Amino acid sequence: MTISVTFKNMKSEFVRILTNSGFTESKADQCADIFALNSLEGVYSHGVNRFPRFVMNVKNGYVKPDAAPALIKSLGSLEQWNGNLGPGPLNALFATERAMELASLNGVGLVAMGNTNHWMRGGTYGWKAARKGFSFLGWTNTEANMPAWGAKDFRLGNNPLVFAVPYGNEAIVLDFAMSQFSYGKLEIYQLEGKQLPYPGGFNKKGNLTTCPGEIIETRRALPIGYWKGSGLSLLLDILASIVSGGLSTFEISQKEAEYSLSQVFIAISLENLSNREHIETTVHDILKNFKESDPAESGIEIRFPGENVVKVREDNTKNGIPVNKTVWETILAL
Amino acid sequence: MTISVTFKNMKSEFVRILTNSGFTESKADQCADIFALNSLEGVYSHGVNRFPRFVMNVKNGYVKPDAAPALIKSLGSLEQWNGNLGPGPLNALFATERAMELASLNGVGLVAMGNTNHWMRGGTYGWKAARKGFSFLGWTNTEANMPAWGAKDFRLGNNPLVFAVPYGNEAIVLDFAMSQFSYGKLEIYQLEGKQLPYPGGFNKKGNLTTCPGEIIETRRALPIGYWKGSGLSLLLDILASIVSGGLSTFEISQKEAEYSLSQVFIAISLENLSNREHIETTVHDILKNFKESDPAESGIEIRFPGENVVKVREDNTKNGIPVNKTVWETILAL
Repeated sequence: MTISVTFKNMKSEFVRILTNSGFTESKADQCADIFALNSLEGVYSHGVNRFPRFVMNVKNGYVKPDAAPALIKSLGSLEQWNGNLGPGPLNALFATERAMELASLNGVGLVAMGNTNHWMRGGTYGWKAARKGFSFLGWTNTEANMPAWGAKDFRLGNNPLVFAVPYGNEAIVLDFAMSQFSYGKLEIYQLEGKQLPYPGGFNKKGNLTTCPGEIIETRRALPIGYWKGSGLSLLLDILASIVSGGLSTFEISQKEAEYSLSQVFIAISLENLSNREHIETTVHDILKNFKESDPAESGIEIRFPGENVVKVREDNTKNGIPVNKTVWETILAL
Repeated sequence: MTISVTFKNMKSEFVRILTNSGFTESKADQCADIFALNSLEGVYSHGVNRFPRFVMNVKNGYVKPDAAPALIKSLGSLEQWNGNLGPGPLNALFATERAMELASLNGVGLVAMGNTNHWMRGGTYGWKAARKGFSFLGWTNTEANMPAWGAKDFRLGNNPLVFAVPYGNEAIVLDFAMSQFSYGKLEIYQLEGKQLPYPGGFNKKGNLTTCPGEIIETRRALPIGYWKGSGLSLLLDILASIVSGGLSTFEISQKEAEYSLSQVFIAISLENLSNREHIETTVHDILKNFKESDPAESGIEIRFPGENVVKVREDNTKNGIPVNKTVWETILAL
């Protein structure tokens, strides 16, 4: 059963719980805001639905509520930071803002952060940067949860990658994992007795399948673009770990839980570019042409990444955020 | 029929032709070197096989042999350059080297170049940077050659993206287009009467197919990762065109031929990072773990991106570069 919770109500419950879990008032407010906003914008899996697990990770000591990032090394436009196992969303927000400061000074800023935690929804940081006028490019590694192309055991992370650009007061934000479908998504399809819309992994005969249960059985979920997403996952992990000086997917996977991740945040300032005056028109023209694509089936709307977020945000602001009743009761009891 | 041509012989033929086509001796040498090296390393499609078309584009005036890039704007670690329609490989090499210079100064360097030309093999620049100790990230836009997800007409480019990191004296280089299979590849499969190993596009019933002819018929080649590669192509194009101030895929596609592209080159210096001493070990450990993946079928070797290049380079150095006889005769006659 689904109930409806206002943003304000959701955030204040999160603040209450985080304050009781060792967060300062200010950090509780900032962290609650991210979880509530992710929910308001429709990414429930990394918002309200994930909140209890986040609180559990604080209780278990994997996430240190009072830890703040520390500068390890500055090379000018590139900085290495130690996340000190602080809350992933707060560390990621800090790194994004710091990358924007560096970009404001020299055009581009790169913050690499090791020893940090799950950032929840990567798009959060793309939206933050893009709505302040920056282009953004960032990624995280994860524990191993996907086989390399041609393999059957987990050696790669799904390592989400985010690209964002400003678009008027909103943004175009692409936030995607290297696995075609997450395990969470496969389980939802399985529970609902549905087939995937497109092949999402291999069955035990080694053939591509749209049956979620067969993929859960083999654990051979498909990397995006077959061998290409496998290679991209590997490169993102190598870059994140060597540029931050933090742990790799291989090292994270040897731990008892998924913590101490490595992340990269790149901000590009558009403010002083020679073509500053034309950027809005360029983006508008590209999107207009894209949206005018001839649909393969009548009635299909061709959507750009993040397009739906604005609508969901408006709907959920108006009608409240839809939340599974059991999930909400769990949260109220925290 | 395939003949064998040494690197030295191939390069000197290219130098002869480029010198006759308006290139200075030094530029002819540099450009010939890139085309011959791409061939030596096995990327024939963007080496020897593409050379006649490159020369044609010089003759047609799309590629200006004597043009050099000009600085439009410097923001410190980010620079905007006008490629002045110079030879794509020379412009891209210049931009890569400039990005490395900027990275040496401030940790990261970004060069955005508009009004440039096809860079041939994107991996070329990743290898150059990585073998000098830099991490590299770069991409180009192209003319429209792929439909958006859910659409049937070309509105997106395949916009190749390159990631590279050093690995001993060699490199790990991922160079991939946003389309699952290029049209060239589809045509080769069709000519050989073979099916694709995995679905590569849609047939006229709107179903995924492994039949190259069906995809050539509908022109609905598959973006990598379905909707994800479609979104990534869009974002890469927007970023390349707004950060360089150059043309977008939409604008390029309105021209009579594919020229005046927009590209981004990002170099990251590893030299002064706090963990400099550990990078080689980190990369080694990640690759070792990756290579030890349990293969889905016995006898399969799990390969990392670029792994095969070293072997092909050695083989072709020893035995000569395999070239289609007709292609080579065409080149000799230029």
